[in-house]
Amino acid sequence: MASDTKPLGQDFTQSVIDATGPNATPRMRTVMAALIQHVHDFARDVDLTMDEWLAGVDMINWAGRMSSDRRNEGQLLCDVLGLESLVDDITVRAANKAGKPSTSTAILGPFWRADAPVRENGTTITFDTPSDGQVTFMHGQITCADTGRPLAKAKVDVWQASTNGLYEQQDEKQVDHNLRGVFVTDAEGRYSFYCLRPTPYPVPMDGPAGKLLKLLDRHEYRPAHIHLIVTADGYKSLTTQIFDSKSDYLTDDSVFAVKDGLTVDFVPLKDNPKAEYDLEYNVKLAAA
Amino acid sequence: MASDTKPLGQDFTQSVIDATGPNATPRMRTVMAALIQHVHDFARDVDLTMDEWLAGVDMINWAGRMSSDRRNEGQLLCDVLGLESLVDDITVRAANKAGKPSTSTAILGPFWRADAPVRENGTTITFDTPSDGQVTFMHGQITCADTGRPLAKAKVDVWQASTNGLYEQQDEKQVDHNLRGVFVTDAEGRYSFYCLRPTPYPVPMDGPAGKLLKLLDRHEYRPAHIHLIVTADGYKSLTTQIFDSKSDYLTDDSVFAVKDGLTVDFVPLKDNPKAEYDLEYNVKLAAA
Repeated sequence: MASDTKPLGQDFTQSVIDATGPNATPRMRTVMAALIQHVHDFARDVDLTMDEWLAGVDMINWAGRMSSDRRNEGQLLCDVLGLESLVDDITVRAANKAGKPSTSTAILGPFWRADAPVRENGTTITFDTPSDGQVTFMHGQITCADTGRPLAKAKVDVWQASTNGLYEQQDEKQVDHNLRGVFVTDAEGRYSFYCLRPTPYPVPMDGPAGKLLKLLDRHEYRPAHIHLIVTADGYKSLTTQIFDSKSDYLTDDSVFAVKDGLTVDFVPLKDNPKAEYDLEYNVKLAAA
Repeated sequence: MASDTKPLGQDFTQSVIDATGPNATPRMRTVMAALIQHVHDFARDVDLTMDEWLAGVDMINWAGRMSSDRRNEGQLLCDVLGLESLVDDITVRAANKAGKPSTSTAILGPFWRADAPVRENGTTITFDTPSDGQVTFMHGQITCADTGRPLAKAKVDVWQASTNGLYEQQDEKQVDHNLRGVFVTDAEGRYSFYCLRPTPYPVPMDGPAGKLLKLLDRHEYRPAHIHLIVTADGYKSLTTQIFDSKSDYLTDDSVFAVKDGLTVDFVPLKDNPKAEYDLEYNVKLAAA
């Protein structure tokens, strides 16, 4: 009846790990053993209380309730703790272990859509351009990281927020698939389109990720960026974000996605009535 | 443009920790620094991939979608990893550091209700008793752990599943508050009521906790138990579970709640037409 028994220490943690049965896959066994070990050590390191743990459970349940096909709050909770950036880095390094350096990667984020329309090179992704929007002509070449050979028929899937900080699926006033499109490279591996010079924006603050940022006394802003996924047959697909080198928040991105080699310069244009800035962005893909 | 930069190591993790602002509380800073450190180390220890991380995010979001005022799947996910038992142990030890040994604790679980009815001593909590139910007369005395003095007007809040493995809020066929009630001790600190001898039951398998148990090749059963919360003015409240010493799954509870000192013996009764078993359970409360 007395509680003068030993605290639940490493023996207890090992017993939880050892409950895994013989038919679990080796990878599942490895991943969950490490997760159990770290979660238990975390609780012991800080003498986590029931009230604190229940507050964490509430945040997890709240994240799930807010998530839909248009929003992934569980992902955002991880993002503000730097986990997606870290996992992206681990994954890409493992995949590229044997290959030559290709273009740097960044996190997918929660706003990509699988059904973005294919558009013609030289056309635009900005419709109903806002009055404070600065139209940019973005173009570049997709090449093989090993040989430098241009890759025809590569796909450049691009998306960005408008100047009000909202992606089109967050904003009823934007037309469907505004600031979003897929471009297919020509025989010389080239793509081009008009878009907006991106602007910083806050991550959504109405859920548990926002609550956590407030509790941590952190701001919610992301530096100005454009999202890209580049794919080509026979090559590893590349998910990245490019950041305006003049943007605020490059050193304190609320989701920690800025890495070396991902900042780009927007060059003022004088002779193009359709755009204020030029942005050249070339991508090297690693062979699969 | 090359990705031959350094992996995101401890420098990166420290930068995420250091993003916490000056107005976060010291406790929030401490807890989140440890959480970030352990979550990042976990990802690095197992080279966590994007697909694996996204599978984890999906489980968290799924847990939130399933949770309601009648079900807490985020809590259950933690429970099958032993976290609630560990945090309960940490919390109670911290609270009792200075006091004498009191009765052992166990996890609250997701089925307690705040609005259970107060019932008279000697009455029953089992209504529409199932044909395979074995009625038990449960009784005992609540005393002060320091002095041994009986505690009058202490409250014993009790709840248990029926023999089909369901608590009343999970089962439309049980009357509201079946197998649930609050008893107030008499002048000698005594309480008594009729209940069921508990039977093992599975945790719900239709959500992410069930999926995780399957992936870990683990069974879903809990040993037969009765939940109790005992409170008295001037004393620390005690949340516990008592386990039938003859039950299956005492050594492999799916939520790791069984601890030393929590098993009890159900003694066959011969002379009570209203019950097949007798269960005496006395509780020592520590002064607040």
